[in-house]
Amino acid sequence: MGVVRLFSVESAGGVTSPKGFSAGGLHCGLKKTSRNDLGAIVCEVPAVAAAVYTTNVFQAAPLKVTRDSIVSGGQRLRAVVVNSGNANACTGVQGEEDAYAMRAAAAKAFGLGEQEVAVASTGVIGELLPMDRVYEGITGLPAALDAQSEGAEQFCQAILTTDLVKKEICVKLDVNGREVTIAGAAKGSGMIHPNMATMLAFVTTDAAINAQSLQELLGQTTNVTFNMITVDGDTSTNDMLLTMASGLAGNDELSPAHADWDAFSAAFRHVCQTLAQMIARDGEGATRLVEVTVTGAVSDFSAQAIAKTVVGSSLVKSAVFGADANWGRIIAAVGRAGQPVNPETVDIRLGEIVVLTGSRPIPFDEEQALAYLQGDTVVISVDLHHGNGTATAWGCDLTYDYVRINAAYRT
Amino acid sequence: MGVVRLFSVESAGGVTSPKGFSAGGLHCGLKKTSRNDLGAIVCEVPAVAAAVYTTNVFQAAPLKVTRDSIVSGGQRLRAVVVNSGNANACTGVQGEEDAYAMRAAAAKAFGLGEQEVAVASTGVIGELLPMDRVYEGITGLPAALDAQSEGAEQFCQAILTTDLVKKEICVKLDVNGREVTIAGAAKGSGMIHPNMATMLAFVTTDAAINAQSLQELLGQTTNVTFNMITVDGDTSTNDMLLTMASGLAGNDELSPAHADWDAFSAAFRHVCQTLAQMIARDGEGATRLVEVTVTGAVSDFSAQAIAKTVVGSSLVKSAVFGADANWGRIIAAVGRAGQPVNPETVDIRLGEIVVLTGSRPIPFDEEQALAYLQGDTVVISVDLHHGNGTATAWGCDLTYDYVRINAAYRT
Repeated sequence: MGVVRLFSVESAGGVTSPKGFSAGGLHCGLKKTSRNDLGAIVCEVPAVAAAVYTTNVFQAAPLKVTRDSIVSGGQRLRAVVVNSGNANACTGVQGEEDAYAMRAAAAKAFGLGEQEVAVASTGVIGELLPMDRVYEGITGLPAALDAQSEGAEQFCQAILTTDLVKKEICVKLDVNGREVTIAGAAKGSGMIHPNMATMLAFVTTDAAINAQSLQELLGQTTNVTFNMITVDGDTSTNDMLLTMASGLAGNDELSPAHADWDAFSAAFRHVCQTLAQMIARDGEGATRLVEVTVTGAVSDFSAQAIAKTVVGSSLVKSAVFGADANWGRIIAAVGRAGQPVNPETVDIRLGEIVVLTGSRPIPFDEEQALAYLQGDTVVISVDLHHGNGTATAWGCDLTYDYVRINAAYRT
Repeated sequence: MGVVRLFSVESAGGVTSPKGFSAGGLHCGLKKTSRNDLGAIVCEVPAVAAAVYTTNVFQAAPLKVTRDSIVSGGQRLRAVVVNSGNANACTGVQGEEDAYAMRAAAAKAFGLGEQEVAVASTGVIGELLPMDRVYEGITGLPAALDAQSEGAEQFCQAILTTDLVKKEICVKLDVNGREVTIAGAAKGSGMIHPNMATMLAFVTTDAAINAQSLQELLGQTTNVTFNMITVDGDTSTNDMLLTMASGLAGNDELSPAHADWDAFSAAFRHVCQTLAQMIARDGEGATRLVEVTVTGAVSDFSAQAIAKTVVGSSLVKSAVFGADANWGRIIAAVGRAGQPVNPETVDIRLGEIVVLTGSRPIPFDEEQALAYLQGDTVVISVDLHHGNGTATAWGCDLTYDYVRINAAYRT
């Protein structure tokens, strides 16, 4: 987990901490409660922007609109407007028109060009957005914007659906003598209401960075952070990660050729990884975070496939809930991942407790294992001794509450 | 489901119903209870044999021994000996020696050559077989054999671990004027004891059949039956399907050139499919069988991948447990299966209730849907309108009991 270089430090703060960003949120009536359900992040200058989207073939309408803005606008954005309570997914032509109308309304409210605005939605699938409420809410957004922590807080609240906790992180680092800030907000996997579409993440920074470098960094970082978490193996129609860089830190433009590129990319990865872990830990019904590290695979790709298979195994997840040192389920998951494995050379540890060496059980202290597995984070380490590939994946345990939450009849 | 031709009929009976087979079971002390934990099927003539094995890279020792017998013995077997309570998996060199010793002891007890005997084990992973009890049990097996239904019953009981019900099926059909019987027994996915290895199935028939044709039929049939069920997506280290054909029905040797080949292969498929469905329905904690049929995919392979993704989705499984007509989770699972799908042309039905047409929600009677989903079998039909590929997969709902069963601390 320690990928951050020593000269970047985590600090209090959120998406408004990087220079140039304000944010806000309000309630416009998409949620039945009085909680925030509409928010925005606005940058005072055109920010370099990059995004990655769900691989689900049923991509929700807002993702098309955001892609359109980023591509047509030369990878620059000034604002993103987000609603929760309704995912605007599986809503056909009308849904697409609504997403474009939401973008137009936000552009007008903020005095921006339409292609400078991205949109995102999360919530119930298959219902049309009540556009009158959306329009009215957007009218109120400019007054709700705030460049201090209160703005970040209100935005964080606006994107949550049934997440139990807000997900926010901020780090600072030195880039050629300038203080650069990277911050993020995310919402995850609370699907108490069925038919909901799930993960959104927003990362802001005041770093000056080359647009292509930002897109490449985002893709690489997503592969080892957000793409390495699983709550239940399901990929939603609305997942999106958007990043905006204002450049106002005044550093020399970052690209892989920059002397501080490694430090910046490590800090960027730390932000994404922390948000991803927060989502996994707040998975539906979860009582603990599960981290699976695979080493000795034939490639990083192979290690990723194995780590995700183990962390996504219902049997492993149930065993973690039961604080059961059940290595048989772990090795069975390793063996069905469809990756090259030497069946005679696998080591497995639970935390520091060795349970399997050379694919053979090692007697261990059951009391000690029970105590470890009852902690709030469980680290499962698998060494295949078959190559140099490594990967880490994150998930959570499978609990009664997961079933209760997801079996609840729609109301 | 109706693949059986009209002239094959299901009848009472089990693995001893086909001519030439006797079977039996007894308790030798591998299970803590007094239930049977050792059984055998014996054929009075060398039976044509074929088997398929788990794809898990950690194959248990008995699978190696059975493969050795079938290959070395020219695809002929006289007997299979099976124990439950201990899977003899992840047991290293000693485990392999024990599996060979179990084969040798059974061969001696039945007066057969070692290569005429197959072995199978199911139960806890990572513990050595207590061979003294196995030897003593095997000594008692010849006296326990019975060619009537009692023998089949005792065998059925001997292979169960924590299955709630025995799994047995028998069909009869006419092959060029001779009555041919095909019967099967299986054990499935009851893993109340953790570290258990799961599915075993045995199919006996008195048909005369060409060895190569039997192996090919077994492979093809497994792909559309046992390989299309999932309880929790985990593939065990011990899964094995073994079939033995005595030839005593006296029909002309079956091969694809035989006029009744289609009838025989349909009946064979019906036996395998019924056992597979029984395993899915008796999945851990299950309250209902879920059948997912995909049509209109670009290929049968593509349809299979989509059907298995839907039936294996934790969100879909939870919704079925909650009798929730949650088509959003179904379409999300279709969309993440990694297969070609036209996002505008998907129809979804729950039983006969249409919930989605052309990827758009259709208003439906919630009361009617609730009543349907509360039945003991739920059929989800997905038509992609994108090709001619079709497939059916079976699974079960995800329940509190699944979590309870699998979170239980090992005792």
